[in-house]
Amino acid sequence: MNKKDPLLEAFIQTKYQVAGHGKRQIQLLKDAFQEVDGELGSDIYGRGKVIEDFQDKMAAYLGKESAVFFPSGTMAQQIALRIWCDKKGIKKVAYHPLCHLEIHEEDGLKELHHIEPVLLADESRVIELQDVISMEEEIACLLLELPQREIGGQLPEYETLEQISSYCREKGIKLHLDGARLLEIVPYYQKTAAEICSLFDSVYVSVYKGIGGIAGAILAGDRDFTEQSKVWKRRHGGDLISLYPYIISANYYFDQHSHKMGQYYENAKELAELFNSCEGVSTKPLQPVSNMFHVHFHASREKIEPILIEIYEETSIGLTSYLRESSDVDCSYEVSIGDQYAALPIEKVKRVFKLLDEKMGNQL
Amino acid sequence: MNKKDPLLEAFIQTKYQVAGHGKRQIQLLKDAFQEVDGELGSDIYGRGKVIEDFQDKMAAYLGKESAVFFPSGTMAQQIALRIWCDKKGIKKVAYHPLCHLEIHEEDGLKELHHIEPVLLADESRVIELQDVISMEEEIACLLLELPQREIGGQLPEYETLEQISSYCREKGIKLHLDGARLLEIVPYYQKTAAEICSLFDSVYVSVYKGIGGIAGAILAGDRDFTEQSKVWKRRHGGDLISLYPYIISANYYFDQHSHKMGQYYENAKELAELFNSCEGVSTKPLQPVSNMFHVHFHASREKIEPILIEIYEETSIGLTSYLRESSDVDCSYEVSIGDQYAALPIEKVKRVFKLLDEKMGNQL
Repeated sequence: MNKKDPLLEAFIQTKYQVAGHGKRQIQLLKDAFQEVDGELGSDIYGRGKVIEDFQDKMAAYLGKESAVFFPSGTMAQQIALRIWCDKKGIKKVAYHPLCHLEIHEEDGLKELHHIEPVLLADESRVIELQDVISMEEEIACLLLELPQREIGGQLPEYETLEQISSYCREKGIKLHLDGARLLEIVPYYQKTAAEICSLFDSVYVSVYKGIGGIAGAILAGDRDFTEQSKVWKRRHGGDLISLYPYIISANYYFDQHSHKMGQYYENAKELAELFNSCEGVSTKPLQPVSNMFHVHFHASREKIEPILIEIYEETSIGLTSYLRESSDVDCSYEVSIGDQYAALPIEKVKRVFKLLDEKMGNQL
Repeated sequence: MNKKDPLLEAFIQTKYQVAGHGKRQIQLLKDAFQEVDGELGSDIYGRGKVIEDFQDKMAAYLGKESAVFFPSGTMAQQIALRIWCDKKGIKKVAYHPLCHLEIHEEDGLKELHHIEPVLLADESRVIELQDVISMEEEIACLLLELPQREIGGQLPEYETLEQISSYCREKGIKLHLDGARLLEIVPYYQKTAAEICSLFDSVYVSVYKGIGGIAGAILAGDRDFTEQSKVWKRRHGGDLISLYPYIISANYYFDQHSHKMGQYYENAKELAELFNSCEGVSTKPLQPVSNMFHVHFHASREKIEPILIEIYEETSIGLTSYLRESSDVDCSYEVSIGDQYAALPIEKVKRVFKLLDEKMGNQL
């Protein structure tokens, strides 16, 4: 951490933080293991009660035949796409231009798997049925990320998903769900996770976003698919002798957080409204469809930083530790609501937004 | 675990086990975290005090400029070889026919990196200087595994290592050390880990063999090499948001076990002698050069299993949970000495080998 980052320093000093479940500290692991019997045996290279029980639980939750625990979503998703490409004999897939595989993985998909992506839609919106229909290239698999994180967590209409799913099945295109934040969209769609997943051939879910675990991912699909994924997991170096530190914490926090996604969603809508009521501030999307959204300040980062620092110091409420510069007249950050929101003192929150509105007004 | 495996069942019932540090149970993690401050922050994608401190400690121990923590050796070693291949523009490496990459990784090196291996020496012995000199193919990198695990943990003479290292440097061949069990050979060579590593351009060390951690690996070399390895770590899906469960336990057990390798080595020699004193039993190598060796029984597995079960039941000392069938007249298993050996009651050990000698004599 950069000691000379004043926004980060001021954020660390705050008593309350608006987003997330809490600090990423070792205590997270200690709490998860507190009640676990020390004599419980480790999983061994993907086998054993600890890993099999959690995989079965997640397969059932996602309505899939089988699920495999992976150390990371990066690994799980590359492997899913590779399996579908090999099956069809075509090394081409389609996804959004801001897909995790395109911008956060050092081009692993291309460098390790030699799979070429076709970018659908543009950076400002989600993939629609028409984007899929009008694609000229033949692809093995289409990846949809729900919600589309890099644009604030936007979603297509559920009907669109159904139409894309039908179209892909008809055309022999596999449909893969980047469901890093799948649990978080269940309240908006008012569908079960299994209902949403039934539209997809394969599904990845992160265990450390809304679920709140330490690290790791689940990849689910039919048994033939997951069995192949285990071979690739070993090739990638992900078939660790023991994955239980991640599995036990994933299971512990799944039980704590999975039923609270509706609350986080309501909190997110409430908070977005507070931001949108301030001069020179808006959220993307305007009304959240999950626990997440982006906050945009319509001024440069160097103008906004001192405003936020003043607010943190006066209220001891931290909004964000960073600002991303989108342009000379815009900076932004990401919010994902977790357990901390419900613990905020309401009077202080009101004060935060009164100050923000005033200071932004003076600024602009 | 197969409930119908009588040898495994009998082994589980024993009070004492001869090899290893102890059972792979959750308690291992609980112990490592017992004294750790819960407020300590997680590493975040390869950064932060927890990961940086341990990497620095291991770099110093190995005498290398820099070290990177990986989730697995499988991942670390493929990446090391890939970096050296890319640097030279030749996708060929050389290693032993029983190299981990050749027999335990589902061909990840070939499937993900399209690197072709040249197999040196034969399955019964280690790689010697002459094998390297007489190689016709041009390679980017030679991998040496010390000790050569699949043949009981054998080692070349130290002088041979020095000669191979000089030859490789002269010919522009990178030398990579599969040092999964590097700490375990330090007592035999009577060199420091850093002295051994100085012969190599890159080094991998496992943190859950002799060190006794939960999972994970260290890859070390010069900074340019390790920086490239971080890019590939991300591509492989190994750049987890939090690796601390493995790092903190690796550090804890490194401090507990790294100074005991001499003791394990002496124990291994003593134990091998006991086996070799029994009729129809021999070890490979005859005299261990580390904490490990293989035990060969000169009879079929179905004849040996009941003998071992009787011994376990009478003495409550477990030798092994499994037997590998090498032929109709030979079966074997692997021993790696850890903390448990020193806790064995000496009278019972004597009784084990008296019984084994008698029963093998009756058998043959």
